[in-house]
Amino acid sequence: MESIKSTMENHLNNLTKPRGSLGRLEDYCIKMAEIQKQVPPKIEKKGIYVFAGDHGIAAEGVSLYPQEVTRQMLLNILSGGAAINALAGGCGWEIIAVDAGVLGDDFPSDKEIQPLCSFLRERVRTGSGNCLREAAMSTAETDRALERGRALAKDAAERGLDMTAVGDMGIGNTSTAAAMLVAAGFSAADVVDRGTGIDSAMLENKRRVVEAAARRANVPPGDGKAILRELGSPDFAMMAGFILGLEGRGIACVLDGFPVTSAAYMAYLINPGISEWLFAGHLSKVAGHKPVLERMGLEPIVNLNMRLGEGTGAVIGGHIVELGVLAARKMASFADAHVSDTGGSEEKY
Amino acid sequence: MESIKSTMENHLNNLTKPRGSLGRLEDYCIKMAEIQKQVPPKIEKKGIYVFAGDHGIAAEGVSLYPQEVTRQMLLNILSGGAAINALAGGCGWEIIAVDAGVLGDDFPSDKEIQPLCSFLRERVRTGSGNCLREAAMSTAETDRALERGRALAKDAAERGLDMTAVGDMGIGNTSTAAAMLVAAGFSAADVVDRGTGIDSAMLENKRRVVEAAARRANVPPGDGKAILRELGSPDFAMMAGFILGLEGRGIACVLDGFPVTSAAYMAYLINPGISEWLFAGHLSKVAGHKPVLERMGLEPIVNLNMRLGEGTGAVIGGHIVELGVLAARKMASFADAHVSDTGGSEEKY
Repeated sequence: MESIKSTMENHLNNLTKPRGSLGRLEDYCIKMAEIQKQVPPKIEKKGIYVFAGDHGIAAEGVSLYPQEVTRQMLLNILSGGAAINALAGGCGWEIIAVDAGVLGDDFPSDKEIQPLCSFLRERVRTGSGNCLREAAMSTAETDRALERGRALAKDAAERGLDMTAVGDMGIGNTSTAAAMLVAAGFSAADVVDRGTGIDSAMLENKRRVVEAAARRANVPPGDGKAILRELGSPDFAMMAGFILGLEGRGIACVLDGFPVTSAAYMAYLINPGISEWLFAGHLSKVAGHKPVLERMGLEPIVNLNMRLGEGTGAVIGGHIVELGVLAARKMASFADAHVSDTGGSEEKY
Repeated sequence: MESIKSTMENHLNNLTKPRGSLGRLEDYCIKMAEIQKQVPPKIEKKGIYVFAGDHGIAAEGVSLYPQEVTRQMLLNILSGGAAINALAGGCGWEIIAVDAGVLGDDFPSDKEIQPLCSFLRERVRTGSGNCLREAAMSTAETDRALERGRALAKDAAERGLDMTAVGDMGIGNTSTAAAMLVAAGFSAADVVDRGTGIDSAMLENKRRVVEAAARRANVPPGDGKAILRELGSPDFAMMAGFILGLEGRGIACVLDGFPVTSAAYMAYLINPGISEWLFAGHLSKVAGHKPVLERMGLEPIVNLNMRLGEGTGAVIGGHIVELGVLAARKMASFADAHVSDTGGSEEKY
């Protein structure tokens, strides 16, 4: 890695700009070079996987929206009307929507619903158990969901993606995420949030539910797989499996907000090496996002006070990484452009 | 304005997302609606004006690069090899390069240099006087440069641009900007920076030069035009004129870093109303950028530690504003998408 880093730095220093003046764009470009093991790196194809799933904990009155909204919103994504469709389109991302356990009947065939983006049916079960009262999934279901996630990483390679992103959608997802994190040792005060916009009374209830669920689970705080089984859901396990499965593929992955980052943290407990191919697309407004990112050593690319999910923050941040790579690929060198170079001061700027 | 704001808010609240969950993207969209006086706003055509010019103060050894780099870099922009070419291309901006007083002979005809972007020849003089020893421009030159800037605002309207951005390029530009700001009442300690990367000894010299120039000028701190004349340059005056000239045209303008923002501040002293159509594309790493933005009530969209200029920060920030507008235009409403809406809590989130 050391030599790719310095080769990339030399490449950047020869381009027609003051040294280091592209700031974080240069850092992102160096990270991409390390991920792809090539100088300069390339980002020609970007795909965002949006994992939709339902969460049993929604029965405890922790969300503002009724549970059927998960299904309605997945259909909305498939027909191009959700926020992620607008933002992914505006940043050059292809969308791969994943039914990772939405409640209700199986979705009709593509022929019937005519999705405007890729749609993968990856249910290992519909919804998850209400983790306040029972395990969210069985051990077999957890394994299967992790495995399906890993298979999707292979899917990303087969699609020829240079950069992936993970988004999520599902009523109850911030409660599920918070319960997992409390079980992993974070304090409820730091990770329980208003989600889609609940009031103070509901927030107090949500905190009680999250803490009680984590107590019931009673799992070792470093056991990501056990936490996913007891408090997670198929979509969270699939996201974790997807991130783990990117290992060694030379494909970057941009995280979205709080739920996605919590799933990534479970993957991190299984393999702390994942940070090497992860970018934090944005800092969400949702409480709890920041401490989890910090634990994984990830710095968010933008901070736009967003709290929507679906991958909306990830596509913005990932596009900025792409701009760094574009600069490295398209800019002229001092020599080529006949621009005088003075090298720059050795002092830290 | 009040009614456009609330119409825009209602439009955003009917879209399939939790209320306010697109965070600052919603604020940017509301500002665009107010600028264009239409709901939803549109951003179909974006153009960045890159003003290149030379600064007499460069003779005082305040920069790392020799003065001929201004001319070399303008040619680099015209042939597509500069950072702004890569980033503007990656964010869907058209580039309009402006010779606003580069030293040396007039540039050859378009036929001879075959620029890959629009190129406007707008010299009112070549370079500027060394403001440590004399006025940067005459009163007539200052008026002419402001007028040419206003004419470029008309050019933007004729090109059908919905959003413009201002970038700058020229050796000595951070010294020029700092001298203007010190004359306007900012402290040298806050606004003198390492620029392209000078060492501590050069920085100390730069501070002395900037302070002495501002003392020599001896102009009223609120007189933007006098400051431009004594300490500015044709390119700074043209940028100020451009920003002033956008008034009433329904066209937004995204500022780049420290020099551009300093030019905007001179325009602000002439007409504080300009903040209404301005966005701050990014927060530059250059010291002094932040206090000037704050004085104009502008919050930077991204903070990527960049300090390159040319408009590189502006095109990134402006693209994020465009994403907010795209969301407002392309997303389905709750009713259209048959998604259950619960309105959201009245509590401040």
